[in-house]
Order: sequence, then C-alpha cells, then structure tokens
Amino acid sequence: MRVSRLMLVTLRDDPAEAEIPSHKLLLRAGYIRRVGSGIYAYLPLLWRVLQKISAIVREELNATGALETLLPQLQPAELWQRSGRWAGYTAGEGIMFHLEDRQGRELGLGPTHEEVITALAGDLLRSYRQLPVNLYQIQTKFRDEIRPRFGLMRGREFIMKDAYSFHADEACLRRTYAAMDQAYRRIFSRCGLRAVAVEADSGAIGGSASQEFMVTADAGEDLILASGDGTYAANQERAVSLAPEALPLAGGARQGGAGEPLDTPGASSIEQLSAAHGIDPTQVVKVLLLLARFEDGCQQPLLVSLRGDQQLNEVKLANAVTARCGAEHGTLLELGPLTPEAAGREGISDLPFGYLGPQLADAALAGARSWQQRFLRLADATAAELEAFVCGANARDRHLVGASWGVLCGAPEALDLRAAQPGDRCVHDAAQRLGASRGIEVGHIFQLGRKYSAALEATFTTEAGQEEPLWMGCYGIGVSRLAQAAVEQHHDANGICWPTAIAPYEVIVVVANAAEPAQLQLAEQLYGELQAAGVDVLFDDRAERAGVKFKDADLLGIPWRVVVGRGAAEGQVELVQRSVGERQDVPVAELQALLMERLAAERRGLLAA
Amino acid sequence: MRVSRLMLVTLRDDPAEAEIPSHKLLLRAGYIRRVGSGIYAYLPLLWRVLQKISAIVREELNATGALETLLPQLQPAELWQRSGRWAGYTAGEGIMFHLEDRQGRELGLGPTHEEVITALAGDLLRSYRQLPVNLYQIQTKFRDEIRPRFGLMRGREFIMKDAYSFHADEACLRRTYAAMDQAYRRIFSRCGLRAVAVEADSGAIGGSASQEFMVTADAGEDLILASGDGTYAANQERAVSLAPEALPLAGGARQGGAGEPLDTPGASSIEQLSAAHGIDPTQVVKVLLLLARFEDGCQQPLLVSLRGDQQLNEVKLANAVTARCGAEHGTLLELGPLTPEAAGREGISDLPFGYLGPQLADAALAGARSWQQRFLRLADATAAELEAFVCGANARDRHLVGASWGVLCGAPEALDLRAAQPGDRCVHDAAQRLGASRGIEVGHIFQLGRKYSAALEATFTTEAGQEEPLWMGCYGIGVSRLAQAAVEQHHDANGICWPTAIAPYEVIVVVANAAEPAQLQLAEQLYGELQAAGVDVLFDDRAERAGVKFKDADLLGIPWRVVVGRGAAEGQVELVQRSVGERQDVPVAELQALLMERLAAERRGLLAA
Repeated sequence: MRVSRLMLVTLRDDPAEAEIPSHKLLLRAGYIRRVGSGIYAYLPLLWRVLQKISAIVREELNATGALETLLPQLQPAELWQRSGRWAGYTAGEGIMFHLEDRQGRELGLGPTHEEVITALAGDLLRSYRQLPVNLYQIQTKFRDEIRPRFGLMRGREFIMKDAYSFHADEACLRRTYAAMDQAYRRIFSRCGLRAVAVEADSGAIGGSASQEFMVTADAGEDLILASGDGTYAANQERAVSLAPEALPLAGGARQGGAGEPLDTPGASSIEQLSAAHGIDPTQVVKVLLLLARFEDGCQQPLLVSLRGDQQLNEVKLANAVTARCGAEHGTLLELGPLTPEAAGREGISDLPFGYLGPQLADAALAGARSWQQRFLRLADATAAELEAFVCGANARDRHLVGASWGVLCGAPEALDLRAAQPGDRCVHDAAQRLGASRGIEVGHIFQLGRKYSAALEATFTTEAGQEEPLWMGCYGIGVSRLAQAAVEQHHDANGICWPTAIAPYEVIVVVANAAEPAQLQLAEQLYGELQAAGVDVLFDDRAERAGVKFKDADLLGIPWRVVVGRGAAEGQVELVQRSVGERQDVPVAELQALLMERLAAERRGLLAA
Repeated sequence: MRVSRLMLVTLRDDPAEAEIPSHKLLLRAGYIRRVGSGIYAYLPLLWRVLQKISAIVREELNATGALETLLPQLQPAELWQRSGRWAGYTAGEGIMFHLEDRQGRELGLGPTHEEVITALAGDLLRSYRQLPVNLYQIQTKFRDEIRPRFGLMRGREFIMKDAYSFHADEACLRRTYAAMDQAYRRIFSRCGLRAVAVEADSGAIGGSASQEFMVTADAGEDLILASGDGTYAANQERAVSLAPEALPLAGGARQGGAGEPLDTPGASSIEQLSAAHGIDPTQVVKVLLLLARFEDGCQQPLLVSLRGDQQLNEVKLANAVTARCGAEHGTLLELGPLTPEAAGREGISDLPFGYLGPQLADAALAGARSWQQRFLRLADATAAELEAFVCGANARDRHLVGASWGVLCGAPEALDLRAAQPGDRCVHDAAQRLGASRGIEVGHIFQLGRKYSAALEATFTTEAGQEEPLWMGCYGIGVSRLAQAAVEQHHDANGICWPTAIAPYEVIVVVANAAEPAQLQLAEQLYGELQAAGVDVLFDDRAERAGVKFKDADLLGIPWRVVVGRGAAEGQVELVQRSVGERQDVPVAELQALLMERLAAERRGLLAA
C-alpha cells in the first residue's frame, strides 16, 4: 500500500480527549477517530491490526476444535428474563443498551451471549454423543458504560471473541477450560504480548471459577497481586492474603466484654483515634454502613465490620450480599455507602456516624420509609477473630475499649470481605509476600457450570438415558482492547512499536527524496519485490521531506524501515529496526534475505523467543 | 471437519415459519436458527459460507484499491439530524432502531453509514492530493422492518458490505462507479451466481443515479423489466416504457371541452364503466386521492390523474411529491390512499369516490381539521396527453364524456407516474418489448454527488485552492442475503446445491458403513489426504445408516460426495456430483487428481465458464 493512498492524517500534538499513551498514539497516528462518547471508527490501519489479531485467535481456537459461528447482536428480552439477568443488565447500574422495536417488543444489544447460545444449545444439542462442543464468534459488543474512557480500553462499542463450551460432565468442562487456558497463552504470546493469568472474580457472568489474562502495563486499570514465587496471582478484586497479626489489646476484655467507655472527642476516624489515644488500628473494629438495592425494589441497610487497619473489598461484599439476599430479592442493582443525607431522607437522623459500633441495634432503623428496618450484619474475619477490641459506642465522641463478641453483641460469621494489599503475606506460603503490578484485562475464562442451562432448560440425554442440564464454560478475549493494550505495552517517546505479528504493515519503504529518480526507482523496485515475497509492506511515496516521513514511520510503529536515500546510487539502503532504533547500511542485494529471516521469527511473536 | 463434531441437526419436515425454498432449506439443513422476529443465528456451516463470500468481496474490492475499515454501529442522532435524515429514519415508516443511552442521548443503530463516513471524511480528507479514496466495511446492519420475512432475505439484523468513495470531481466519481460496477459483476460471477444489473430508484439514500444487481430467482421480491435485446433492464420501481396508444374518443371534445354528462349508475370502476358503456380504458382519466404525511406534521391531500388503463407507481409518485414539498415540509414519512373513513374523521363526507374527476375543486377539502385544504395535483403523461377524455363528474353515478384539459380544469404538467408493465414497448426502441423476470436485490451502487458532503460540510481544497464539498459514491452488497439468494438460485427437491466457490465444504467423504474397518480406514485416509491437499473437506463419520448420511449430504448441498462403501476392499470409491447427480466409480489412486482438476475450475465460479 502506498502512503499517499492511505488517507493518512497524523497529528503532531496530543489530542485533548486522551489521557493514556496508547490512546494518544492511536489518535495521533491515524488508527482511530472518535465518533461519539466511547464510540470509535477503526480506520484502515487499525483494521489491519484487528484482522491480524483475529486471524491468530481463529487459528488457535480452530486448533482446539472450536467452531466459529455468529449470533445476533439484538437479543429478545425474554431470553434474559428467563436467565434472571434482564433487570440486572438494564436497570440501575446495568450496562445493556436496550430499546423497543416498532411492535413494542423489548430488545437488548448484546454485551455477552450466554442466553442466546444456551437457548440454541437446548435446541441443537440433544445427546451426549454430540458433546463436547465449543462455539465461538468474533463480534462487536455493546456496553453502556457509566464512564467510557481510555479510547478502546473502556468503550461502549468494542470487538470481542466470545466462546461457549458445552459438556456432559464437569470433568469434561475442566478439560476444555484447561485447553482454552493454554490456547489463550499461545494467542497472547503469538501477538507479542507479555500477559499473566490471574484468579478473578466471576462478576455478573457467574459460575464456579474464573481466570483473567492481563497484559502488564503501567496504565492498566486493574491491580494485580502476585507472589514472588510465581505460584499465586490474582486480581485485587478477588485476591486473598493473610492479614498482618493484630496487636493484642492491653488489658483484654473489660467489664466482662461489654467494654469500658472512653471519651474520644473529635476522633471520628481510625487515624484520629490512633493518634490521640495510642490505639493501634489492628485493635479496632471499624463499622461501615452501606445500602444495597435489589431488583425487587428492596433496599437493605448493611452493617459491615472490618478490622481498623483493613479496607473493604466491594466485590467480595457484593458477592456475600448476593449469596444472602439474591434468592429472595433478585439481582443486586446497586451497592453504595449509606450516607447521613440518605438517612435523613428516610427520616432517620440519629445514626452515630464516626462512632459506630457493631452493637448498633436495628431500632436505629425504626421509622425508615422505604428501607428494610433491620441491618444485614456482615463481618470480615479480621474483625470477627478479635477477642477484645475497641469500637464506637454508638454515641458521639465516645468509644468502647475491651469489648468482646458475644457479650457486646452476637458473634458474627467470619467472612472474607477485606481487600488484599501489596506486602500482605500469601495464603499458600506465609513466607511469601504479595507484590503489585498493573494490568489490562484482555481475556477472561469461566467455568459456568449449569447456571444458564438449568435456567433456560437446555438439557441433553446422558449415556444412561437421563435428561440433564448441559455443563458450560465461557471464554472471552477483548480483541479491540488487546490492540490498544499492545500499544500500551509497546511504545516509546516517538510512537508505537508494534509487535511484528500484529503490526498493520511489517516493513515501510521510505524514499528520502521522491524527486530523485534513482531513489524513487529503487524504492519502487524494493516495494514490489517485498510485496512479491509476501511481506506486508507500506511505501511512503509522498512528496514530503524525509524528516517528516521518518517521524510518521516512527509514530505509526512499523517494525522495519527501509530508507532509500543517497546510497541508492551505490546500491545501499538503510535498515532501521523500530523497537530498538538500530540502524544498519545494507546492500540492496542482501536486504530481502536479511529481512525475511528476521520476519520469519518475529511473526511467531514471543513463541519465537 | 467431522460431521460428528459439527453439532449438525437436520430437519425432515419444512419448518412452519418458512415460506420460500431457500429459507426452508437453510433451516432444515442446520445453517440458521431463528432467535427472534427477523433475527437469526448463523450456525457454523453458514458462517463458512459467509466467510467465503466475504473473502471474494475483499479480494475484488482490494484489487480496485479500496481500503477496508470498520465504522461504529451505534451512531449519534446529531449526525443524522445534520443530514436531515433522522426523522425520516426514526418516525413514521422509518426503519432505524434507536435508543437513549444512560445520559439520555439518542443513538441510532446503523442501517447505513453515509453520515458517519462523511463526517470522518470531512476530518481526514483535506486536499485533492488525497483523492480519490474508497473505504469499505463488512458489518452487521440493522433495520426495524415492518414485515420481516423470508429468513435472511428481509431480516432485521443482516450483514452488508458497504463502501463509500470520495472524489474531487464528478468525472472521477463516474470512473470509480464504473470500476465498482465491474467489481460487482466479478464478485457475483465468482460466487457462482447469475446476476443482472438494472436501473434502480435511489430511495432514501438519494443521489443522481443508481443501479441494482439482482440474482434471478422465481421467489425474488423484485420485478425486473428488461428488453429482449439486452440493452435495457430496470427494477419495476424505476422502469420506463412507452404506454400503449390510446384509442381516440369518438366525437372528440364535447360542449367545448367541458364534457357531456353521462349517467353511469353503479359504474364506479374503470372495468364497470368500460363494460356498461363501451368506453375503452385508454379514453378515461382515472383520479386517485392519496394522503402524504411529512416530517413537519403537514398532511397533504394528493389528486393524481392517470390514464384509465395505467397503474400508479408509488415510488415515482413519492419522488414527485418529495421534489415538490420536501424543501418546505421535510421528509415524506407516509404516503397512502385517502380513504372515505379518513376523510370522515376530518369532517369531510362528500368526496365523490368512484366518480372522481380531475376538476374536483379544492373546496371539497374545506373544513378539513388537520389536512391542507388544497390538493397537490399531479398527472401522469398518459392522462395529460389525452385531448378529449372521459372522467368522473364528481357526482354519484355520473361521468363526463368528451372533456378536455384547459376547459374542464387547468392543464397539468405531464409527469412519469405510471408503472411500466411487462409487454410494454421500450423507450430506446419501440420495436422492443419489456419482458418480466423476478430477482433478489443483492447489490446497489449509487452516485451520491454532494448531498451528504454539503450537509455535513465535508470539504477539501481543490488544486486551484478552493474549498469545495467532496463528490461521493456509495456501494452496497447484502452479504447474508446473497448467501440465501445463492440457495434460491441453486437447489433442487433434495436440498441445496452450493456453487463450489461459496460452499461451506467442497467435498464430503461418507463412509457407508462405519462399523466396517476397511471402509472406515479408507475414508479416514481420503479425508486426511484431501485436507492435506487444501480441500475443504467434511467427513461423515457418524454411526448412521448410509441412506441417512446420503440424504443429509444432499440436503447440505456439498458439491462433491465421495462414498466409501463395499468397493473399498477393491480400492474403488463412488464420486457423486451434487448439482447434476452424476455418479461414477473411481479408483482411489485417481480420486484426488480428478477432484483437484474439477475444483480448480469450480473455485472460479462463473468466471471459469
């Protein structure tokens, strides 16, 4: 392709709309243009990248025996109502775009396809003899994000590969899950990306186990916690660790465990309590009030106890709340702090914010207009395990010292609600510590079990002649996000440094002075020869100054640049490797062999290493 | 691929939801499944067909220098408001699905992409030096059809290839339009389809000229009118012809052209008038009342005069109405008969239906509640050219004989509003007659001119340094419709007969008795050898009876079937060509060479012929 025919417009300055390097570079180099909030046009250069990624995905999935298909983007509400996800995906913080058609029927724009594929599987898969089957598609998906940002990283319209497998039993599901794990590792390696697999929360998809694949990059939205020995890595949303030991409370339980009042004027935070009264945060039971809103309209106040030095993990809390209330009240639509303002609107004005203790009685909710008048009480293990502790006295400027569970109030069930932190000791080996890095989620695989097949009555006949729900797995890759993640991991001050396997073009031939016939002729010749050799080659034939063309080539990030300049007359060209900036003069006669050897290896991505 | 791993479910009986052969066959053979009204899942077999069609489209378009891209499906309303198409596409009979996002901003689901691409072109194309450019995408499109039907023929979600070209002048647009015409002919030929190019109406897309490509098939929704000499072909919506000569009215004009009253009790139709009073339909001016509703709410009664033997072409009428009222009242949203019931609701009860004459005064509309109180009067040339005619007297049971324009009422402008009919004489050569055939529209190319670039201010700098709107063309192919059209053109009583170039698999190896080791072993060997030779081969390894497998192979429509049966022991297999049912015994040693030779030609589609 000739650059003059490529509709290329590069920008010298960083666009105001972009925050992170990859977003800036994709805009500046003419790979994408914004059409609306979180909505982008993929220009021809990016489309080539996306096609190369898709081709690698297809090859690896086909090699596992998976079948490619294409499911509709418009999905009847009825299917989502059967699985119980319609409300959760369309109300409250639900992210599914939805509309009414001319007949007034509700349709959702697919963010994912469990419902559609399970309904089809129920129709098409009838016997254990047809199993296992793994179906995948590469398709544009939609999410009405609350805060679209970072370009293709968190867009409202994006390209996903999603796969769904069906099995006669759980062992078979596990085998396919493991095969997909391996396929994913190969896919990311072939794309030239350093990616790590981490334990993950299963979120709105559900199921028993899931694993994310993260491209490591400083601008990643996710925090990865991993042990130094390489045996444990998890998304912070999911990560477990050993909390630091608590300092024993001097004097232990006081007043038989009811606790001794202590005047703590103005000490409404752990930090203030600690500074003013010499109490270690590990000796405190901290109480948070939150409010959960459910599909059926129920609004449930939560009273959550944590040890004073610990932070709440909201994902773990949401899972615990759903486990306790989901069956009765449906999907959890919102979970957020219970604020003094919200309490005021309910007609509750005397909640002792800043001095809350776990013994706060349900009577505090008496008279609430629309809330449940009883707390759902949950406690993290770090708090539940304290034998004697300090906590708020539920009265302004006062705490209790030496309180104990069972005396002060009922002993709580010990849950895992705390956020693991960098530096925490590991569960698998207390000698290991969790280190932190940032990542961009590009893949997620799930063992779904029978959640969807049971809800949508997708059954098969077992070898023994029984009708049973299918076992399912599902497997996603964010194709367009992966393209941007590659830029985030591979760029420098001058622009993008595409891994060769997914670069829009592998080589760019630049004629330094297009007005010089010898240069132009040699450049045309090399362009033709490289094309004939099967190289994806770009030819910068524009009548621009050489410096402009070199800058554009760096910005575009083409792995190899062949400069046809003054040496053309002597049969010499300059070869520049973009990623390392290495330059060498090469006789024209040797260029192709040299390039083909390097490309052959680079096309295999990290598998070549 | 092994049939046992293909999730194949074939149906013996025609599904109730399907009316035409191709829809029945795609469902029966397991190519598609309905997910909702006009919404289908493309199962793995169909996806292979769609990929093969897409690959042919890409090769041919890339060869013209077109660039592949991908534009968003979600489109901001604001872009469509700027082009003036939002109301026409979302109100009344508008077919664009639309929704509000969580911020309350309106978005449309793209049925076409003129607005988005023109806005991008305005940003990216700045100089004549960058022109021409032709951008295309292969993408799922959406239309909220009033009557989705015939499976993929008229779905609400379907795959299109759409291309948009940009030019510095009209001559360049015409060159690209001609190049796309040629590329389209090659694409359909390579797909193995007999297609004809016909003149077409440009509809809601607009522009100065357009041409459709029709796959000929009895079940086609479109009527094609073509001259026997091959020089003229048009969609009936657009077709022109010479109307038959009118019989002169005996006695000519009467009462100075005011016409002589004739009692015609009960003769409220042309047929009755003709039968009871010996008046030839060509001597009559027939008057139709219609009502047009516009974007700005205006409801305009129309009084349309046609010669009694002619039929109205509603597309031509809509174009004429838009040309006269569009600038003042905006998009024409609806056009339909003005019924006695609707007139009654307006408070108009004395319209002389059945005895209408073109002299009907605007006073007939006096008192209308929401309609304009003045007719828009239009006349087809066949009526306008009559020197003396019969028409209704605007009084029950009475006509006028020997009326003349100018005396009876004002002489109308002569328009083309009539539907051309099979058997009509041709405009280009009156010795030629129009013949009729039916077709399925699979492509449509348009010379758009500067309609969108002017509206969206997409300008470029000319060589002379002026800012001018870009010249544009656009070019569509219905990829998923094409797949079904191929079935409509290529099937028989036993199933589909795919053209090889787009068949999901080229060869199916069927083992007659999978329990017979010699047969199974030879079949496995041939399956492996053909795969290795680059043939798309399916292997029916199922433990079904041979008859079931043969029936399925015919239904699926794989071009070549290799049957490994009793002859296996002697190194003989049977080779069956699906399309013609021809069978031959072939020695195993000769099979591959024979198949490869035939496939090499067939992969070129009709270009091989």
